Amino acid sequence: MSSSPSSTGHSNDQDQAPHEATQQHEGAPQPEEVERPTHPEASTSGGDAGPANIGVVGLAVMGSNLARNLASREGNTVAVFNRSRSKTDELVEAHPEAEFVPAFTYEEFAASLQKPRTAIIMVKAGKPTDAVIDELMRVFEPGDIIIDGGNSLFTDTIRREKAVSEAGYNFVGMGVSGGEEGALNGPSLMPGGPDEAWVTLGPILKSIAAVAEGEPCVTHIGHDGAGHFVKMVHNGIEYADMQLIAEAYDLIRRGTGKSPAEIADVFEEWNRGELESYLIEITAEVLRQTDAATGKPLVDVIVDQAGAKGTGAWTVQTALDLGVPVSGIAEATFARSLSSHREQRDVSGSLPGPSSEEFTVPDADAFIEQVRLALYASKIVAYSQGFDEIRAGAAQYGWTIDLGAVSKIWRGGCIIRAQFLNRIAEAYDAESDLPVLLTAPYFVEALGRTQDAWREIVRVSAAAGIPAPAFSSSLAYYDGLRADRLPAALIQGQRDFFGAHTYKRIDKDGTFHTLWSGDRSEIEAEDTH
Amino acid sequence: MSSSPSSTGHSNDQDQAPHEATQQHEGAPQPEEVERPTHPEASTSGGDAGPANIGVVGLAVMGSNLARNLASREGNTVAVFNRSRSKTDELVEAHPEAEFVPAFTYEEFAASLQKPRTAIIMVKAGKPTDAVIDELMRVFEPGDIIIDGGNSLFTDTIRREKAVSEAGYNFVGMGVSGGEEGALNGPSLMPGGPDEAWVTLGPILKSIAAVAEGEPCVTHIGHDGAGHFVKMVHNGIEYADMQLIAEAYDLIRRGTGKSPAEIADVFEEWNRGELESYLIEITAEVLRQTDAATGKPLVDVIVDQAGAKGTGAWTVQTALDLGVPVSGIAEATFARSLSSHREQRDVSGSLPGPSSEEFTVPDADAFIEQVRLALYASKIVAYSQGFDEIRAGAAQYGWTIDLGAVSKIWRGGCIIRAQFLNRIAEAYDAESDLPVLLTAPYFVEALGRTQDAWREIVRVSAAAGIPAPAFSSSLAYYDGLRADRLPAALIQGQRDFFGAHTYKRIDKDGTFHTLWSGDRSEIEAEDTH
Repeated sequence: MSSSPSSTGHSNDQDQAPHEATQQHEGAPQPEEVERPTHPEASTSGGDAGPANIGVVGLAVMGSNLARNLASREGNTVAVFNRSRSKTDELVEAHPEAEFVPAFTYEEFAASLQKPRTAIIMVKAGKPTDAVIDELMRVFEPGDIIIDGGNSLFTDTIRREKAVSEAGYNFVGMGVSGGEEGALNGPSLMPGGPDEAWVTLGPILKSIAAVAEGEPCVTHIGHDGAGHFVKMVHNGIEYADMQLIAEAYDLIRRGTGKSPAEIADVFEEWNRGELESYLIEITAEVLRQTDAATGKPLVDVIVDQAGAKGTGAWTVQTALDLGVPVSGIAEATFARSLSSHREQRDVSGSLPGPSSEEFTVPDADAFIEQVRLALYASKIVAYSQGFDEIRAGAAQYGWTIDLGAVSKIWRGGCIIRAQFLNRIAEAYDAESDLPVLLTAPYFVEALGRTQDAWREIVRVSAAAGIPAPAFSSSLAYYDGLRADRLPAALIQGQRDFFGAHTYKRIDKDGTFHTLWSGDRSEIEAEDTH
Repeated sequence: MSSSPSSTGHSNDQDQAPHEATQQHEGAPQPEEVERPTHPEASTSGGDAGPANIGVVGLAVMGSNLARNLASREGNTVAVFNRSRSKTDELVEAHPEAEFVPAFTYEEFAASLQKPRTAIIMVKAGKPTDAVIDELMRVFEPGDIIIDGGNSLFTDTIRREKAVSEAGYNFVGMGVSGGEEGALNGPSLMPGGPDEAWVTLGPILKSIAAVAEGEPCVTHIGHDGAGHFVKMVHNGIEYADMQLIAEAYDLIRRGTGKSPAEIADVFEEWNRGELESYLIEITAEVLRQTDAATGKPLVDVIVDQAGAKGTGAWTVQTALDLGVPVSGIAEATFARSLSSHREQRDVSGSLPGPSSEEFTVPDADAFIEQVRLALYASKIVAYSQGFDEIRAGAAQYGWTIDLGAVSKIWRGGCIIRAQFLNRIAEAYDAESDLPVLLTAPYFVEALGRTQDAWREIVRVSAAAGIPAPAFSSSLAYYDGLRADRLPAALIQGQRDFFGAHTYKRIDKDGTFHTLWSGDRSEIEAEDTH
């Protein structure tokens, strides 16, 4: 059912062209006439339940696609609203097949929704989201459910949940992954918020989520900011995964001289094995693409400066607060920022390289297999670090997060979807409070069989002068984790020397300080430094 | 002059033992009797100028030492105040040689200072600092100078400077480096704040700062938060430097089997060459220390879990906001947090290592020289990244920071003091807006001569399974910076594929998107993603 409760209602869109105000939705069937109130404000909250069981506010690409996805599922009727009326008109007009209930004011939007009203906000994170929340609280009633499906920082979500719930509404911060295509055909959904909201929201979300091995890619992650937190870490892992793939490609290209199209074949082959994943699949697609204008591989025409939307940085910043080493994600984030500093790279091109910079591998196939194994090992580290951050975040913020369930909902719909996530789910199913993911038996076996190649690839990249920050960082992390003794003891000694920061001893309890400027005897110290 | 304007005045110290209230400063000469007002509040601001030209609030070890340093310099008379009276009494009693004017209320403190009153706060960063600022604003007058010498986050300093200056006072956030010993004998000082305050404060700070090659280690860094920002980056570099030294020690120990005392000899030797620095010097001291209780090297008795006070994390978090890759500082910070996760290390000890884990180097002396060169090269990268962050911070916050002057004031008094900083100063003297420090001719030469060893050490650590995150990360950064093409182009392709994030082309202006789900033609796109 596509109906328009008020196509003459005013819109708050400043940019709206005059002719659009009276434009009819010509393409849309209008099976029933809906009365159009001259004063749309009259049909505000408190009236009878509207026809829609779910609403979407914000109809840019992500919001439109999510609304279309919702409308395509049995049982859903979708109210849609956008600040600029034209977007609403376009959506309804372009998709006559969808059961939309367009609204042109917040009052109409509220009136078009069944109770408890349930609305997903799909606008820019930050102030625009706060503004929409305020408007919805104005027209909604206590008990209604307001969902923020944007890429909000989880601490903003915690703040909003507190404010909105204190006013009696339910607030759900929800991570939505999968980009435009995922939003349309089935995203991976990471809702937080209260249990009460999940009762109403769960079935709706399950109807639109991606399905992986028979299970919808959505679970109630935890309270308040848990959903956006998990989505943030998802994106951080995505940064690491992409950087690892980029390093693998670079090594193969520089080591074997293969063309991008030939390397596309390699990735296609890899996608039939244990590396099977969306990112490996699209890497093959991108590498195979020829630029029509020049006839060159597209990857050679694209400027090599990577952009970023900030979620990688958030993941690392949060990990630093939590004391969780996510070095793979950090290196990936920094590799992007390094690439974008053109002014520095322009003056650095003549920095000396290794004496033997010319680099060819004797056996291309063997080398490619080593790169594949190094990629797999490094990927295990990146995911392990990411799940560590979720575990630490849950402890810090009091969320009960089922890490196995998180890995399962990432198997479909999202950018990092991969076979591999089944292994992670199995690891957490076997031991839900695993202190560090890569110690699960499957990963121990995998690391045992891949690590000689991994070490060789780090060696090759160092010797040949090919930057492999994520490969080498993940290996250093792995060797640090398994080290019997770390030189951190020396760092504690230095800190005690210059700052009296004290140290612990391996042979007795207590906190100690050496009188470095005195007679160098040891005293027991208060543990205050 | 040690005098006590009000040893009978009340103290706001809750913990003060009764007998201390009437305790006389027996050790202190009392050359003149000072009248003791029965109501200390009567001698509040607005009265005649007091005898002291500088005051210190907060007499824990850093504050006491700074006060003693101030008092030891010709021309300074130092008012001292502590929330807990006992600390003030102890300080004055223990140092009869010092010209202290003890105060026991904020009113007395204000009354004891010449105008413009100038007071350095040395209390814990955060709320305690805000509380003292409020008290000083209560008893001081507009035009007076309030200095925060604590380890405050620069954004707090920006906030405080705004609030305090709006009330008519001068506020200076000042970084103080050198630990307890530096505070006493000559710290490196990094004051921010307004030019007006520097006129009064400059000569006082010059009197107490460390002196390096005839120049006092203090300069007016820039406005508002500039001083604390630079101090933060100083600490971040310190983290990287310490981690690099720790990796060098670990490699030498595991590679050559030398004892800590023998490695102390190595560091002592290094301290006579281009690595000459305080951290190398104290590393030798720590490694030479024998534990009296066990007869073992102290470094083997210390628990290998490194603590951190947060400034390393701040430096990385800020760099992520600024888009500056400080991978060396990040790896150092993460190495500390990894070391401290005992629960993870406990389950990771049996993770498989390289097939040929037994590791001995054929020529110990040659290996040690390679480690030295790798340390020097990595150190250049760490400092270059740190100065990059200062440059980016200055641009972001509108500070005019003389990077050469910053490197000069770090040559003495602070933890990272080193010969090496002269080379940095020379680089910025020759080209003040150098886009990236390591492209200065001196460093290009150094990197050219050290890099083969650096690459070999990364190879050895990867092969032998010895964690060297800072060595390998700095090498990867270096190779990334000098790369002609980076695989960031592939990342841009992936981002365009899954998120329509668009890309730039090397051959024409504009922003482009390939219709990946369509006919794969390229369209010109708005640069909004």
